Amino acid sequence: MAQLQRLDHFPGAEMIYRVLSAALIICSVSVAAAESSLDKEKLAQDVSALFAAKAVDNTTPGCAVGVIENGGWALLKSYGMANLEHDIPITSQSIFRTGSLGKQFTAAAIALLAEEGKLDLDVDIHTYLPDLMEYGHKVTVRQMIHHVSGIPDYEEGLPALKTADGEDLELENKDYLSIGEFYNRVKIIPLFAPPETEFAYSNTAYFLLSQIVKAVSGQSLREYAQQNIFSKLDMNGSFFNDEVNDVVKNRVDGYHRKEDGSYSIYMTNLSWVGDGGVYTNLEDWLKWDQNFYHNTLGTTGDEFVPLMEQTYSVSGDYAWGQGVSTYRGLKQVSHTGSWVGFTTMYTRYPEHQTSIVTFCNSNVVTNRAGREVRDLVLDQIAELPRPQNDTN
Amino acid sequence: MAQLQRLDHFPGAEMIYRVLSAALIICSVSVAAAESSLDKEKLAQDVSALFAAKAVDNTTPGCAVGVIENGGWALLKSYGMANLEHDIPITSQSIFRTGSLGKQFTAAAIALLAEEGKLDLDVDIHTYLPDLMEYGHKVTVRQMIHHVSGIPDYEEGLPALKTADGEDLELENKDYLSIGEFYNRVKIIPLFAPPETEFAYSNTAYFLLSQIVKAVSGQSLREYAQQNIFSKLDMNGSFFNDEVNDVVKNRVDGYHRKEDGSYSIYMTNLSWVGDGGVYTNLEDWLKWDQNFYHNTLGTTGDEFVPLMEQTYSVSGDYAWGQGVSTYRGLKQVSHTGSWVGFTTMYTRYPEHQTSIVTFCNSNVVTNRAGREVRDLVLDQIAELPRPQNDTN
Amino acid sequence: MAQLQRLDHFPGAEMIYRVLSAALIICSVSVAAAESSLDKEKLAQDVSALFAAKAVDNTTPGCAVGVIENGGWALLKSYGMANLEHDIPITSQSIFRTGSLGKQFTAAAIALLAEEGKLDLDVDIHTYLPDLMEYGHKVTVRQMIHHVSGIPDYEEGLPALKTADGEDLELENKDYLSIGEFYNRVKIIPLFAPPETEFAYSNTAYFLLSQIVKAVSGQSLREYAQQNIFSKLDMNGSFFNDEVNDVVKNRVDGYHRKEDGSYSIYMTNLSWVGDGGVYTNLEDWLKWDQNFYHNTLGTTGDEFVPLMEQTYSVSGDYAWGQGVSTYRGLKQVSHTGSWVGFTTMYTRYPEHQTSIVTFCNSNVVTNRAGREVRDLVLDQIAELPRPQNDTN
Amino acid sequence: MAQLQRLDHFPGAEMIYRVLSAALIICSVSVAAAESSLDKEKLAQDVSALFAAKAVDNTTPGCAVGVIENGGWALLKSYGMANLEHDIPITSQSIFRTGSLGKQFTAAAIALLAEEGKLDLDVDIHTYLPDLMEYGHKVTVRQMIHHVSGIPDYEEGLPALKTADGEDLELENKDYLSIGEFYNRVKIIPLFAPPETEFAYSNTAYFLLSQIVKAVSGQSLREYAQQNIFSKLDMNGSFFNDEVNDVVKNRVDGYHRKEDGSYSIYMTNLSWVGDGGVYTNLEDWLKWDQNFYHNTLGTTGDEFVPLMEQTYSVSGDYAWGQGVSTYRGLKQVSHTGSWVGFTTMYTRYPEHQTSIVTFCNSNVVTNRAGREVRDLVLDQIAELPRPQNDTN
Repeated sequence: MAQLQRLDHFPGAEMIYRVLSAALIICSVSVAAAESSLDKEKLAQDVSALFAAKAVDNTTPGCAVGVIENGGWALLKSYGMANLEHDIPITSQSIFRTGSLGKQFTAAAIALLAEEGKLDLDVDIHTYLPDLMEYGHKVTVRQMIHHVSGIPDYEEGLPALKTADGEDLELENKDYLSIGEFYNRVKIIPLFAPPETEFAYSNTAYFLLSQIVKAVSGQSLREYAQQNIFSKLDMNGSFFNDEVNDVVKNRVDGYHRKEDGSYSIYMTNLSWVGDGGVYTNLEDWLKWDQNFYHNTLGTTGDEFVPLMEQTYSVSGDYAWGQGVSTYRGLKQVSHTGSWVGFTTMYTRYPEHQTSIVTFCNSNVVTNRAGREVRDLVLDQIAELPRPQNDTN
Repeated sequence: MAQLQRLDHFPGAEMIYRVLSAALIICSVSVAAAESSLDKEKLAQDVSALFAAKAVDNTTPGCAVGVIENGGWALLKSYGMANLEHDIPITSQSIFRTGSLGKQFTAAAIALLAEEGKLDLDVDIHTYLPDLMEYGHKVTVRQMIHHVSGIPDYEEGLPALKTADGEDLELENKDYLSIGEFYNRVKIIPLFAPPETEFAYSNTAYFLLSQIVKAVSGQSLREYAQQNIFSKLDMNGSFFNDEVNDVVKNRVDGYHRKEDGSYSIYMTNLSWVGDGGVYTNLEDWLKWDQNFYHNTLGTTGDEFVPLMEQTYSVSGDYAWGQGVSTYRGLKQVSHTGSWVGFTTMYTRYPEHQTSIVTFCNSNVVTNRAGREVRDLVLDQIAELPRPQNDTN
Repeated sequence: MAQLQRLDHFPGAEMIYRVLSAALIICSVSVAAAESSLDKEKLAQDVSALFAAKAVDNTTPGCAVGVIENGGWALLKSYGMANLEHDIPITSQSIFRTGSLGKQFTAAAIALLAEEGKLDLDVDIHTYLPDLMEYGHKVTVRQMIHHVSGIPDYEEGLPALKTADGEDLELENKDYLSIGEFYNRVKIIPLFAPPETEFAYSNTAYFLLSQIVKAVSGQSLREYAQQNIFSKLDMNGSFFNDEVNDVVKNRVDGYHRKEDGSYSIYMTNLSWVGDGGVYTNLEDWLKWDQNFYHNTLGTTGDEFVPLMEQTYSVSGDYAWGQGVSTYRGLKQVSHTGSWVGFTTMYTRYPEHQTSIVTFCNSNVVTNRAGREVRDLVLDQIAELPRPQNDTN
Repeated sequence: MAQLQRLDHFPGAEMIYRVLSAALIICSVSVAAAESSLDKEKLAQDVSALFAAKAVDNTTPGCAVGVIENGGWALLKSYGMANLEHDIPITSQSIFRTGSLGKQFTAAAIALLAEEGKLDLDVDIHTYLPDLMEYGHKVTVRQMIHHVSGIPDYEEGLPALKTADGEDLELENKDYLSIGEFYNRVKIIPLFAPPETEFAYSNTAYFLLSQIVKAVSGQSLREYAQQNIFSKLDMNGSFFNDEVNDVVKNRVDGYHRKEDGSYSIYMTNLSWVGDGGVYTNLEDWLKWDQNFYHNTLGTTGDEFVPLMEQTYSVSGDYAWGQGVSTYRGLKQVSHTGSWVGFTTMYTRYPEHQTSIVTFCNSNVVTNRAGREVRDLVLDQIAELPRPQNDTN
């Protein structure tokens, strides 16, 4: 089956829940460890050594790396450059495009709209998007949240993602579709399987969620999230970017290292959101992370976080824009993103109120680095060792 | 006839030679004034006042402005920002995309290849590009240099510039064609008129010149110009950029001011060259300017500059990638560029060894500014006043 | 009488209240005009033209300029560079050293301490600073606030400001005294006149106020103001800098233009505060300005602002770290600062809720610019024309 | 004996020749290895690991690190920030103050003046500086070059370096002396021992050499070196900085890390040169390094480099502004610098045409790093292992 040209850069490719969903669920017994805190000095040395092996310096892209513990930074480091043309270093204020990390904000918007009573998670989505093709099955928002709707991902050689010449669209730095043009193509894509029969990660479904937000709120996902999430949490540098050529202060460029060792700027001119599209920085992310412990979104308070961690039918570990599983004996809530040069990873261990965030901007240092930082942290707090043949 | 979406951004739109070619050619009598030099202080004040009226400040794009006299800078000023996301000011080192100013380098490459004997200016171009469609007329490189080849410009609703859906290509920030894809489209465009019947500015023809350079030299235009022009003149920051996503130190972004006053980044992902595509800065341009007085390119020395100023048959004032005319009583050699947010202008008054260069990076301050700087200079050195109803 | 080497850089030199205190106090009749608002476009053009005449560009220092009206910016512009070595433009976030503008924060700290009951404005200051020399007169905090204490200014060739060789101290970029060393010298300076006999601007007295704050609060002026003023008003970039070599994000360098047109960095290594020493930016200043309309400092609410505008005995128009007068028929509250390359000016017209703030960083563009911006604003809102022979 | 407050920051403190001069001189047998080249990949990994252990990131100062082999860079890396206030990374263009590395340029200037016949290395220096105090011994330039003149170093509690209060001068960020004032103090310092009796590193003597250059050439050392060294070698960013407050493009700030982990800017306002004072960058230093293999300075060509490596009487390994010794079996020419936050090291192995240069800008990462880079290089090319108890 035909594939998009750079399949490896699609978010799904690195999703960690795939393995996790098959993993043994070991009952967490580590709550007692919650008071112990990280050895920050050792962590800093370990993380520095890890990045040292990657040849990041002031002439290369790199990463912003944060480890949160008990509401503050146990580690906050940046390596490499945000912009190679003007020698701008990455800092904790640098604004990264975060790829599929954005799905948790799309899911949160849906959750808040459901709470407001504007959206029924379990009716057929044609209620909200009447111009969608007839699927022959009832498809619900809830199914789309959990990737069990049967709506195929972009990655499947769909006609929707062909040029009119029958070529695959080149979505990074190249071919262009407006949001409207993309929706016009997506709305005629049939299901690949009946709903609730199979877990299948679907960026397409999350894009459609952005259209549902618009249909029920009268606001674009950008506007709705701005008003109901980002402003509420004082995440002033964060937004769904549905105009990717707009000027964004402190914006990081994504880079692709070529064979000769030089870099090209590796961006997209696609502006659709929902499957991703959140721009943010580490300083803001701390606020998002803390909201999982002290929710201030919506009106119901206590219900938001448990909902966000709910899984569904065949969804395995996939909850609301985030995977919920057990890793090294600890409850882990996690997601990655990977898109046009950016790789991002966010992993939360609620029992320890400890999280790891990594935002990187090239194809050189990727989410492998994020996973290694995670395990360096867990080496200090988890009771179980790193798994053999770890593919997480 | 259908037009490309943003016709106004095509180089031809602002070409000054159109009016000039109809102007009376007044014999220059001002050589005697050549010793007099500019009042630099007055010039600086006049230019500053001019830019003040344009609301350029540290939150807007702007311009680099240089006035050359007797081999040095009589004025060298920069206003506004090269990059709004990182607050990088424009300086005399800032690298601008110069649009159609690049045509004089394409023409120079052709001139040097002709001098080397690798290229015959007057044979049919199918000699070099055998896969071009059969035109039904002999078309020569010389005709293409002077825009009298009958090859139509991009701007004509050509099928070559349609998407396969029949939509007009959007060439800024959006639709993508590789150089090869573009050539495959261009090579089947028929003439719109027999050669040598009409002057018609043709970016298409200059693009084809880049392919002819490659055919006869075995090097891309980028490589050939690097080796035979830019390196020779120590223009170390200058090159034909045929990989527009590559990292370029000190690169200026082009901007489009939107109705709400905010800016979007206004770039292209098209990498073809010949009709334009030269990246350079003011410091390098001084070296190019001075080469018109003391040529060091090629082997024949004295012949290069006169050739570059030669016109041809119905070409009117259009010489080799530059217009040669008379303005306010002075011999003027000039060209402008205008492309995806960049507007550039270079005007040389050889009798006074005086030139004006302006590189700007938005749709707010454009070549009108360049022309006004030019006239502020001429107010000091020309005997004739500004023309009424000046459209130059 | 001997003078310090660069007298012109001392704050007192440009104080506007000197003339104002002799001016006729014209009863303000312009309250009715308060609804009218500024023509922002005209103002922007006028201000740009003003700065154009000053040859500010991307290779020179410059100014941040703000005009506040009805709680927001009617004009917010920046011209020139904050740091010439790294081509960093001035922006509304740039942190300027503000010289004597800091006096209003020293005065505010004193006002808040008095309100708290920690400080009696009218007892002899030896109560708080017992190691001061015996003055032979009762000297009060209130007198010091209004410059009627008889404590001489630095500028008087005092032994306190001689090197031990008998040379005048060079306080910019050169000779060093710690706060303790300075206090040890200041505490033995006798009065030059009995208190309440004469207005005489005294930086020395305001420095001593910083020592009194420390004596009564147990906190340095920096700490006290941080806690009771800057944090309260969310002025996150603002502080009394009593360690001038500390790293400050976005710090502007002060420059001195030399005769050959090049610049030297023009700083001090003196860290004492009280007479000045506040670092801030335009964005923060807006919050300070608005607090004069909706005070949130201290506990008494309504009393703070009237107190800050109170004058005293022979103090003329000098209130609490700010002059209160009438200019062009309007009530004006104003102060300037001038120190090691920085010139600053803040003028408030409470009847119109309109203010002008200018922060500049060289000896080239100074408070003359601030006054001209002020008059450009008043040309729109004041009923009286610019005075003849204006020395304000 | 009284010491200056921050003795550890004086260049002499880390001079490596002290131990080297006592080391066994092992006859070099490794010339045959000269063709072998470095494993650049391994070197890059080793150096990255070394800096990783030092917690350098985008919020800290750091180092520029270069390894030269056969005329080019075998390694060229930069870590950390040149300016923490504006997030400017260190690059190979960053201009560092190099401390005592400047002595080799002072020595070179002397050598060139001697070659020109303007200076006699062996006459009494009162010939050139008649206003020096009477020493009671003949003191020559040659003795001063090799630190055997008996002129004491600054570090000796000399009255010349007391304030008039009898306090030690604080030379970093604080007390100020002009060059003239310093010379007036230095010229009355007596010898601490008769010439040629003892090696004693003397910054004072190298400062006096700058005055001798001026006396015999009529140019300041800055001017003389500009004309006769830096321009000749196309070291366009390099100069003796005798006006330390002048604006220098790409200038690195020196930093001092305080106990709380924050940084203060750690500079001096002293402008004297000779003992140091060269500002330069890695790109320029490559040219200086290569001149030791292909000398183009002066007129005698072959004699300059051997002279620069000549030692003298009791000077041990100290030649002309550089130490010449044997380390790990290889001939080593080396010097370090350490001054107000900057630590620098340059080590050349002529038999391998291999050199190591490190420029650092804080008290956190110092010349220990430089030595370790050196040994990582030697681990690849030297036959002997690292010495036990290495104090080099």
